[in-house]
Amino acid sequence: MNELGTLVALLHGPDQPGLVARVAGWIFARGGNILHADQHRDREAGIFFQRVEWVPALAKTGKRPAALKRAMKEFSAFAASLGMRAAIAHSARRPRVAVFVSKADHCFHDLALRWQAGEFPAELVAVVSNHPDLAEVAKSYGLPFQHIPVSAAAKTSAEKRQLALLRKRRIELVVLARYMQVLSPDFLTGFGRPVINIHHSFLPAFAGGRPYHQAHARGVKLIGATAHYATADLDEGPIIHQDVTRVTHRHDVDDLVRMGRDLEKRVLAQAVRWHLEHRVLAYGNKTVVFD
Amino acid sequence: MNELGTLVALLHGPDQPGLVARVAGWIFARGGNILHADQHRDREAGIFFQRVEWVPALAKTGKRPAALKRAMKEFSAFAASLGMRAAIAHSARRPRVAVFVSKADHCFHDLALRWQAGEFPAELVAVVSNHPDLAEVAKSYGLPFQHIPVSAAAKTSAEKRQLALLRKRRIELVVLARYMQVLSPDFLTGFGRPVINIHHSFLPAFAGGRPYHQAHARGVKLIGATAHYATADLDEGPIIHQDVTRVTHRHDVDDLVRMGRDLEKRVLAQAVRWHLEHRVLAYGNKTVVFD
Amino acid sequence: MNELGTLVALLHGPDQPGLVARVAGWIFARGGNILHADQHRDREAGIFFQRVEWVPALAKTGKRPAALKRAMKEFSAFAASLGMRAAIAHSARRPRVAVFVSKADHCFHDLALRWQAGEFPAELVAVVSNHPDLAEVAKSYGLPFQHIPVSAAAKTSAEKRQLALLRKRRIELVVLARYMQVLSPDFLTGFGRPVINIHHSFLPAFAGGRPYHQAHARGVKLIGATAHYATADLDEGPIIHQDVTRVTHRHDVDDLVRMGRDLEKRVLAQAVRWHLEHRVLAYGNKTVVFD
Amino acid sequence: MNELGTLVALLHGPDQPGLVARVAGWIFARGGNILHADQHRDREAGIFFQRVEWVPALAKTGKRPAALKRAMKEFSAFAASLGMRAAIAHSARRPRVAVFVSKADHCFHDLALRWQAGEFPAELVAVVSNHPDLAEVAKSYGLPFQHIPVSAAAKTSAEKRQLALLRKRRIELVVLARYMQVLSPDFLTGFGRPVINIHHSFLPAFAGGRPYHQAHARGVKLIGATAHYATADLDEGPIIHQDVTRVTHRHDVDDLVRMGRDLEKRVLAQAVRWHLEHRVLAYGNKTVVFD
Repeated sequence: MNELGTLVALLHGPDQPGLVARVAGWIFARGGNILHADQHRDREAGIFFQRVEWVPALAKTGKRPAALKRAMKEFSAFAASLGMRAAIAHSARRPRVAVFVSKADHCFHDLALRWQAGEFPAELVAVVSNHPDLAEVAKSYGLPFQHIPVSAAAKTSAEKRQLALLRKRRIELVVLARYMQVLSPDFLTGFGRPVINIHHSFLPAFAGGRPYHQAHARGVKLIGATAHYATADLDEGPIIHQDVTRVTHRHDVDDLVRMGRDLEKRVLAQAVRWHLEHRVLAYGNKTVVFD
Repeated sequence: MNELGTLVALLHGPDQPGLVARVAGWIFARGGNILHADQHRDREAGIFFQRVEWVPALAKTGKRPAALKRAMKEFSAFAASLGMRAAIAHSARRPRVAVFVSKADHCFHDLALRWQAGEFPAELVAVVSNHPDLAEVAKSYGLPFQHIPVSAAAKTSAEKRQLALLRKRRIELVVLARYMQVLSPDFLTGFGRPVINIHHSFLPAFAGGRPYHQAHARGVKLIGATAHYATADLDEGPIIHQDVTRVTHRHDVDDLVRMGRDLEKRVLAQAVRWHLEHRVLAYGNKTVVFD
Repeated sequence: MNELGTLVALLHGPDQPGLVARVAGWIFARGGNILHADQHRDREAGIFFQRVEWVPALAKTGKRPAALKRAMKEFSAFAASLGMRAAIAHSARRPRVAVFVSKADHCFHDLALRWQAGEFPAELVAVVSNHPDLAEVAKSYGLPFQHIPVSAAAKTSAEKRQLALLRKRRIELVVLARYMQVLSPDFLTGFGRPVINIHHSFLPAFAGGRPYHQAHARGVKLIGATAHYATADLDEGPIIHQDVTRVTHRHDVDDLVRMGRDLEKRVLAQAVRWHLEHRVLAYGNKTVVFD
Repeated sequence: MNELGTLVALLHGPDQPGLVARVAGWIFARGGNILHADQHRDREAGIFFQRVEWVPALAKTGKRPAALKRAMKEFSAFAASLGMRAAIAHSARRPRVAVFVSKADHCFHDLALRWQAGEFPAELVAVVSNHPDLAEVAKSYGLPFQHIPVSAAAKTSAEKRQLALLRKRRIELVVLARYMQVLSPDFLTGFGRPVINIHHSFLPAFAGGRPYHQAHARGVKLIGATAHYATADLDEGPIIHQDVTRVTHRHDVDDLVRMGRDLEKRVLAQAVRWHLEHRVLAYGNKTVVFD
């Protein structure tokens, strides 16, 4: 887009007249050129949301990083003066991502291949697993693999090791790629950054284990997958993306599982891409996705 | 297909070797010509399912109806001798259908127009409602409309009136086209024939009223509809068809309701068509749809 | 949204820095409150597109219509000063729509029922047909029906009668609901306002007549429909909306035709709604749809 | 299913009464148990199609391979006696597959990973490319890679080398995974076995190069992919599977290309699976897919 990159801000706060004009005016007055600006209003909640992306005016040479940092800080202060919270990012900076896996490898391969193909503006820098199974696979992609066993008895200490690793590797996003452990509220709070999870979804929904068996027993005609931000309530965080695929009585449980894998890959990858492009704004228990 | 029409049998029973050959052989030995024959096995349950459609050999002139009746009776006896239950229908006979409505008219218009366009091999012969609102609309399609108010206090007597009407009009299928009353187990048993219902479906599911408001509040990215046979447990009967449509934060509750209407029309019409073409075989709490 | 309604502008012109800020600033300076503002840039063509919707500041009483008219005129002049063309509409004003039909009634029923259900912010005020078949149907919706026969020999004079009718009834949009005549360039120029058409689409495409027969002969697995603005090149105008549905070898030509009808209804209705909500901006041979 | 595996026959020939009964009877009389039997009639062409899968009665010990071979031969002779051509396969035998690639790796990774995951009942035994780029990738999956450069001048000799390789490695299916060369009629005849290709599809279709650029310029709202058997007329062989994905003006050409990759992977993998499960029967320029 621009060799200097762009700034992307995700804003939200109480709705009030003139917000669009003020934000655009502020950027324009400082020589910035807005490339994209999407707004949304949740009228029931009275909240204003905006994603705005612009090319900042910066000295062509010299202290660019410092100038960028200052521009971002100033914009945040300006947003605060309007009563809004702003997350602001520089498009040229690639966030550092960790992928958590267990034994299933389909989502992991999919993410790693897309990362290699340049589909994600991010750096995949760590693979964490409660099982050793995917160590070789991670290595084949040149990714450091960390085996941190998680037992019911020692879950707290395992999560402490995970948190230490995330901090040490300066991780900014965790993607749960069929990681089969529930993350504790303490872990989520301790990490303090987004965690994206993928899980199957059915119409109607099924509680308990072996969901594809249950779906098959119930004779559902659609199976689905949902990508969402992890919250203390595991499968109930803000939804980022969902999709379904059609099944018939001709599909047995193995088919459902296989088709579910394809869905999970696709839905998770799309959610991760949108997140990394700063298109997802979570609030309360829902999201605005500026696609 | 054939001026004499075809016979369609839906069979199911304990699986055993040779069922396909025996059924085909029986028909062939009596001069019938099989047009379609679809099988399915539920291996876990050990059940064999078949839809077989054939042109029976009948005298070109004379007592066709009697001969047809006899052929159907003989086939049923044959199926029973294999340990299978058979539902057998003559394609040229158009079942008599009643539509139950309340105030919403979208599914009713859709069914009536498709019926007029010849999409359903059936006769729409009665419209029953707990509200008088759609009387004029029914009339515009030339359909008899019966207003049977349903109050909490007098639900039993209302259902008796409904049953009497269904019997008098020799109804063979009831379609609930956004009929906003739960049918009692007594009604369903008393009618003793299939009832198809349509309801919205969400990922995740929502209990309680105003589901589109709940879905909007939850920020779902898909809304769905499910057509199913009504059972004592209202929204939980065997699923015939399901579909979804994509929604975003840009859609407000009114949009969801409007998009839900379109889904409901489409899913209900497809389920009704499949049922009328003798393609749906319900067993336990699920269906086999021979599409 | 607002008892006074909103103003919606569709703008486009050569891209230049500051457009978002200038438009928002202009509205804000006059006391307007922006509800929605979507932008798009076609980088290859260097064109900027915007849909902006706002509540204008108007005197609470008195000469509102005049004030609205003046606001719209001033905004257009302002857009012109930025080198942009603006189409600006008042949301409370319902455009007058004519539907052209031939013999097929499915799209017409669908449009009329949606209009009755309040799904379109417009007035359906005329039905024009080259055949008398749908006269009764139009009447059942309370719509004036005009039969204007079109013969190869007298096409020019027929189109003159059509144009005269459109002018007399002050029509602002023509929807071709399976109208089986090609409109001449002279007609399109003479009308000078948008015409939306629906046609089937296939992968691969088929030239010539009986397209569903060709699609069946070719064994396609998807059939589609495309809604577009009519231009001199009939099926090649700017595309507004497209959708497909899956077919198999089990579907015969009649099934394809029936499924095609459903697609056509759905795709045309969506395109018409987007147009009437001022969400579609056509340029060159393509569209930007601000959904 | 069965440790002995099943036999799967794909039959087609002139329609005549009694085919279903005769085929089922033949199998039953020899102690076989039919697991699946799907039929289809192309009424216009008067052709009968069947896929029938059964467990043959074989001696529990001893000369199974010979007995199987004999059973297959006898069935083929029986089918011929009914005027039908039969392709018959033993489910336990895994066909040998070669993948042809050029530089793009997305379809190749997808096929290789699915093969590793056990999704294909086949052996991937050769990777052939006109470029050396994917040699390392093939190696990482443990697959032999053969670089056979193809120049316009020496295309004939290159195809001879390819054919020699296919023969030597006893290849039974070639999958063109974004192989960017047209195969000559001589090659296709020389190989004499199925070749599956994947290509993008658009509504409307575009001729010439850079199709995603053309699709973007035309403002299409859907992009598609089609998997088909390769014939002398490259993109026009019998269609096995098709799918589309929705695009908007917000997607640039790079997005279309990326989304096209996902489509291509998915559609090709499904077509290959169906083929390997003996579900696809090609005739004339179309297919019957017994899914």
